[in-house]
Amino acid sequence: MTHSPLDPQQLTADLIRCASVTPQEGGALVLLDKVLSAAGFTCTRVDRGEVSNLIARWGDKGHPRTMGFNGHTDVVPVGDTAAWTVDPFGAEEKDGFLYGRGATDMKSGVAAFVAAAVDLVQTTPPEGAILLTITGDEEGDAIDGTTALLDHMDRVGEQMDVCLVGEPTCPNEMGEMIKIGRRGSLSAWFTVTGVQGHSAYPHRAKNPLNAMVRLMDRLASHELDQGTDHFDASTLAVVTIDTGNPATNVIPAQARSTVNIRFNDAHSGAALSDWLRAEAARVARDFDVDIGVEIKISGESFITPPGPLSDLVSAAVEAETGRKPELSTTGGTSDARFVKNHCPVVEVGLVGKTMHQVDERVEIAQIHQLKSIYGRILRDYFDQG
Amino acid sequence: MTHSPLDPQQLTADLIRCASVTPQEGGALVLLDKVLSAAGFTCTRVDRGEVSNLIARWGDKGHPRTMGFNGHTDVVPVGDTAAWTVDPFGAEEKDGFLYGRGATDMKSGVAAFVAAAVDLVQTTPPEGAILLTITGDEEGDAIDGTTALLDHMDRVGEQMDVCLVGEPTCPNEMGEMIKIGRRGSLSAWFTVTGVQGHSAYPHRAKNPLNAMVRLMDRLASHELDQGTDHFDASTLAVVTIDTGNPATNVIPAQARSTVNIRFNDAHSGAALSDWLRAEAARVARDFDVDIGVEIKISGESFITPPGPLSDLVSAAVEAETGRKPELSTTGGTSDARFVKNHCPVVEVGLVGKTMHQVDERVEIAQIHQLKSIYGRILRDYFDQG
Ligand SMILES: [Zn+2]
Ligand SMILES: [Zn+2]
Repeated sequence: MTHSPLDPQQLTADLIRCASVTPQEGGALVLLDKVLSAAGFTCTRVDRGEVSNLIARWGDKGHPRTMGFNGHTDVVPVGDTAAWTVDPFGAEEKDGFLYGRGATDMKSGVAAFVAAAVDLVQTTPPEGAILLTITGDEEGDAIDGTTALLDHMDRVGEQMDVCLVGEPTCPNEMGEMIKIGRRGSLSAWFTVTGVQGHSAYPHRAKNPLNAMVRLMDRLASHELDQGTDHFDASTLAVVTIDTGNPATNVIPAQARSTVNIRFNDAHSGAALSDWLRAEAARVARDFDVDIGVEIKISGESFITPPGPLSDLVSAAVEAETGRKPELSTTGGTSDARFVKNHCPVVEVGLVGKTMHQVDERVEIAQIHQLKSIYGRILRDYFDQG
Repeated sequence: MTHSPLDPQQLTADLIRCASVTPQEGGALVLLDKVLSAAGFTCTRVDRGEVSNLIARWGDKGHPRTMGFNGHTDVVPVGDTAAWTVDPFGAEEKDGFLYGRGATDMKSGVAAFVAAAVDLVQTTPPEGAILLTITGDEEGDAIDGTTALLDHMDRVGEQMDVCLVGEPTCPNEMGEMIKIGRRGSLSAWFTVTGVQGHSAYPHRAKNPLNAMVRLMDRLASHELDQGTDHFDASTLAVVTIDTGNPATNVIPAQARSTVNIRFNDAHSGAALSDWLRAEAARVARDFDVDIGVEIKISGESFITPPGPLSDLVSAAVEAETGRKPELSTTGGTSDARFVKNHCPVVEVGLVGKTMHQVDERVEIAQIHQLKSIYGRILRDYFDQG
């Protein structure tokens, strides 16, 4: 039996035409279900809340040699439609680029690993299994997305040995970077409450801003660390301070600020929370004001230390692109933060330059190159088995 | 010839019934013109821009022995009318109090010095002159108010030897305080401009808030002085810091703040401006950001040092109230800041507790007491001549 190979460019275009803005499924998962089922994958929709997700397995459930992939078909809103030079859901092709929302983030990535997996099982069926986990809730709250898939897998005994996340990972050139972990992220909201008063009589008031600027200066000028083996230094950014007092002769009663911390494996969200609360308490005491602190930990740092999986991926990337990729832990968050609780995980994808932007586009050659990278990783993985 | 004495309580009530919210004249100056003209004063309306002012002289123009008074008939808006328990312009009398906008600030003060002056010239005409300068623009921008009166006086050769401003000066009890000067006031607006960026990559951005909190902390924790002979310590209040950045993952491009300084005679507005600009430049250099500074000097500090005028006023206050008044330089600004360029000036008035508030009211007994104080000051002033 021969098959015409699945074209990842065509599949990317078909996926772009599905208007799958989170949490809309938009036909994207239905399309993948059809394509993968036809190729012999066992597909299961794992919907939770208002979100749709898809798990597709080729090979035996629970096979110890199971290569996993993770990706998302949901996209961020198009934003200012008038600013686009093309239909954001039109999948227009121009000068070697394919345009549309999700072109880089990450319908091309999903198409590439789907095409690579289908290719492998149809040409040289491996000894083992392939598990594709595709969510419709990565750009949203990510509560009912990849976590729902992992919960389902636990329940039914699906298991991945290792997993690749297909998010764009290269800042500028194909092959220059893969991600083996991410820093954690935490946001803290401070509310300093003093006593309002007339600016001519500051001793009768308690200016919350005096405490606020001292606290923010202490936090912003504190060195959290100088980086660790695989991580850049942790960073803290004061992202906003607001008072909203229009009167120059009035000392305000309250001021608010927000701080965002990106932290490496030298810290935990809990320890940083303790530190922030202690700093706030100290300044509150020094200035005799009240400082409320609310903290949300978006994710702890995680890492799949350099080893067999990153070696495998690096070698494949280098073979296909001629570049030895940097093993990075930089950047914002991704669903790898959930997958890492399940198995070793590495992120490897194409150039993410235009993601979330107007006229988002992918170089068509990169789609094919990415499919080749994934195909080589799959072959090498099963060859080593 | 006998006259029925002018009742300061009745005059206060009549003035309250004039809805003279700045810049509305509301009939207040027309009323005073009529009353004073009838008592033999030469009245001149000195209107400038949209503001009305009145100057009333008894005696010879340019007489070296001319006692001046300064006051205003304009009032601040009533604010939340529903919160008042009385008609703000009704001049209702209740439990020994007279209610209404301007009851303390300062229609009672104007009525008291008008009644005292009329009383004196009708009962024991003095050797000298009395000059009443009454503005309709003290609560507003004060551009076309007392300054217009003083400009007019320069032009036509009117001159005061000394002047009393009839603003409320007592925090709680009649007679406890007079004011011999005021601190200066200056506001500064800072705009810190850095480079926007993603909070995961702060090294690619330049966070304006880091510079902002350092600068504000430096300013707020700086001791300007410890007070001078007649002044409290100068004060600096950071009154607002605003960024308006709703995104925790974005480092903002810009942040703004406002600082208000109340300064004594150890400083000038110009020297403080230099200091603020130098501090901003230093922090801008340290943090490699741009810091714009705009400064408005509302008034320099001024003082009529303790001497003949304050002695005269103190003695009269003590004789009428039994309290030796504190010679204070505290509080917000007043038109004394203009009058001090013309002649020695002291502020002496009643209790200002409810000024600018809902249900503003004056204790009726205080109106009569204030008239007695002004009357005694007038008699003593001319007796000493
Ligand atoms: Zn993505
Ligand atoms: Zn006033």
